[in-house]
Amino acid sequence: MKKNGSISIKTISEMAGVSTATVSRVLNDAGGFSLETREKVQKAISEAGFVPNIMARGLRKNSLPLVGIIVPDIINEYFSKLVLQVQIALARCGYSVFICNTDESLHQEQTYLTSLKTMMISGLVCISGYGNANGNWPNVPTVYIDRHPTGRLALSTIIESDNLSGGYHATEEVLRRGCTRIAVLVDSRNLSTCIARKEGYKKAILDAGATLHEDLIFSVKKVDFQNAYNVITVAIQSGKKFDALFCTTDWLAMGALAALKHAGINVPDQVKVVGYDDISIAEHAALPITTIHQDVDEMSRLAVDELVRMMNGEPCLRDHWIVPVSLVRRSTT
Amino acid sequence: MKKNGSISIKTISEMAGVSTATVSRVLNDAGGFSLETREKVQKAISEAGFVPNIMARGLRKNSLPLVGIIVPDIINEYFSKLVLQVQIALARCGYSVFICNTDESLHQEQTYLTSLKTMMISGLVCISGYGNANGNWPNVPTVYIDRHPTGRLALSTIIESDNLSGGYHATEEVLRRGCTRIAVLVDSRNLSTCIARKEGYKKAILDAGATLHEDLIFSVKKVDFQNAYNVITVAIQSGKKFDALFCTTDWLAMGALAALKHAGINVPDQVKVVGYDDISIAEHAALPITTIHQDVDEMSRLAVDELVRMMNGEPCLRDHWIVPVSLVRRSTT
Repeated sequence: MKKNGSISIKTISEMAGVSTATVSRVLNDAGGFSLETREKVQKAISEAGFVPNIMARGLRKNSLPLVGIIVPDIINEYFSKLVLQVQIALARCGYSVFICNTDESLHQEQTYLTSLKTMMISGLVCISGYGNANGNWPNVPTVYIDRHPTGRLALSTIIESDNLSGGYHATEEVLRRGCTRIAVLVDSRNLSTCIARKEGYKKAILDAGATLHEDLIFSVKKVDFQNAYNVITVAIQSGKKFDALFCTTDWLAMGALAALKHAGINVPDQVKVVGYDDISIAEHAALPITTIHQDVDEMSRLAVDELVRMMNGEPCLRDHWIVPVSLVRRSTT
Repeated sequence: MKKNGSISIKTISEMAGVSTATVSRVLNDAGGFSLETREKVQKAISEAGFVPNIMARGLRKNSLPLVGIIVPDIINEYFSKLVLQVQIALARCGYSVFICNTDESLHQEQTYLTSLKTMMISGLVCISGYGNANGNWPNVPTVYIDRHPTGRLALSTIIESDNLSGGYHATEEVLRRGCTRIAVLVDSRNLSTCIARKEGYKKAILDAGATLHEDLIFSVKKVDFQNAYNVITVAIQSGKKFDALFCTTDWLAMGALAALKHAGINVPDQVKVVGYDDISIAEHAALPITTIHQDVDEMSRLAVDELVRMMNGEPCLRDHWIVPVSLVRRSTT
């Protein structure tokens, strides 16, 4: 990678095949150029591995080439992969990304939003469940990924997985294999993602003419291995009978599998288990987990596309994107 | 958690059992109070779940209650856990943390440092291998974790695992089990962590009077599953014979195990494998991995302790901390 100092507007103009005046107009967002021209210039900047710091500021006036990402839990590989891919794509467009990990805390989220507001960020990517209830939200182009906000800005779009279909496919998989008492393990908080997955589960059962057992809807207060292990252990000990378990994340599935193993229940013979996310652990676990694959590549591509569009002063293409999911069949069903 | 608005200096003073004037002096770092008093006040603020934004700025004059964390790869759970714990502990002291994921790129790291410099951060936690070579470093209290910097600031401390002992224990484990042709898989970049682990490996072999086989030192350009898989597959195909393999991270061990399995080589009967880090995947993998446990709890505790100390204008306790590691024996040895 070349050093910053060795690259000038002239170099960029040569690489892009446009005049230096055009490069300057693009960098300063001064108009008088086509979308194609801007793309050429941005591609040249990206290929040069060059972030023209002061010039890039001109990409959006009165703001810095900084984007904040609000993320609930960077320990969960599903989120950390999303964040990484968004960051890599934004870096190519000249933006630095500050990752704000809220650890699922509303207080932390609001503290971050206040800080970001004073930082003249150009845009925001937000994976949250709280939304802009307190009016503290930075008034910048915003992409919500995954979880729906409770309030919403004018300049924003929502990008989410097709969680309804995900829950449906997961449940269909075990129905197809003859299961009749299908349990589900959900997050006790009312996040839009989890609600949709549970709706998909219910719909699949009803569509198949099977019985929905309300007493087989289990929930955890915190989405992790240990809580899933505890909840499923208690369910088994209290005599709940189920022949399938749809876990709404892979880490919940990991904890549930450990609880089933500890109770001497064979998977998949006695109980079939389906996870959600398709993170590495689902593939490499002792018993590789059948799961719902979320298309992190496409979600992050769309997020960056729409955010850059809005940061350049254009409207987003759609105000709501739903990205398809797919079932990955492994050893637990 | 109470709302910010409902908590006053009076509330904090009652909780801490000190006068409001003392709370104010602590918040403004005005002197005239003991270390214990400050701890009491900070504990009360933390318990109240309260970050007094404007007041907190007084904790360090001319700076904001923001800390930057430079991290090379948030996808690796070892790093994301370190970052999370540092962040949680700093939040208790009233600091927000911006996570800067460099994706192991020097260019990204320098861009971040430049941005952080303009943000009036109070402190920096840095996991990098590049150091402040370009003079762009924010002149703030800094804690380096893990990897040694190539240059170093006056107000700084280094916290690292005992990587030499880690490499030694890992190698000793397979020597004890009779292995004589012990391979090692390292990062091709000259990071201090990896150099120390390799030195420990060499020392254990020499101390045992065994033979060091230079042709069994394998290296990857990027530390991940796929690169490890490829390098070990090539090693096997080119006829390299080894009865043990020390992988300097758990993800390298995961890739190596997949390559060995694909080649029909039994672990641990034909080849014993030891990883490093003790992340979740090592515990939950199909073949749970014998590995070196890094004490992330202690490292993050020390990092925050020393950073807060320096941000409060005191010298750090030590300029170099070495945190002990331990061997976790599982199914690969």
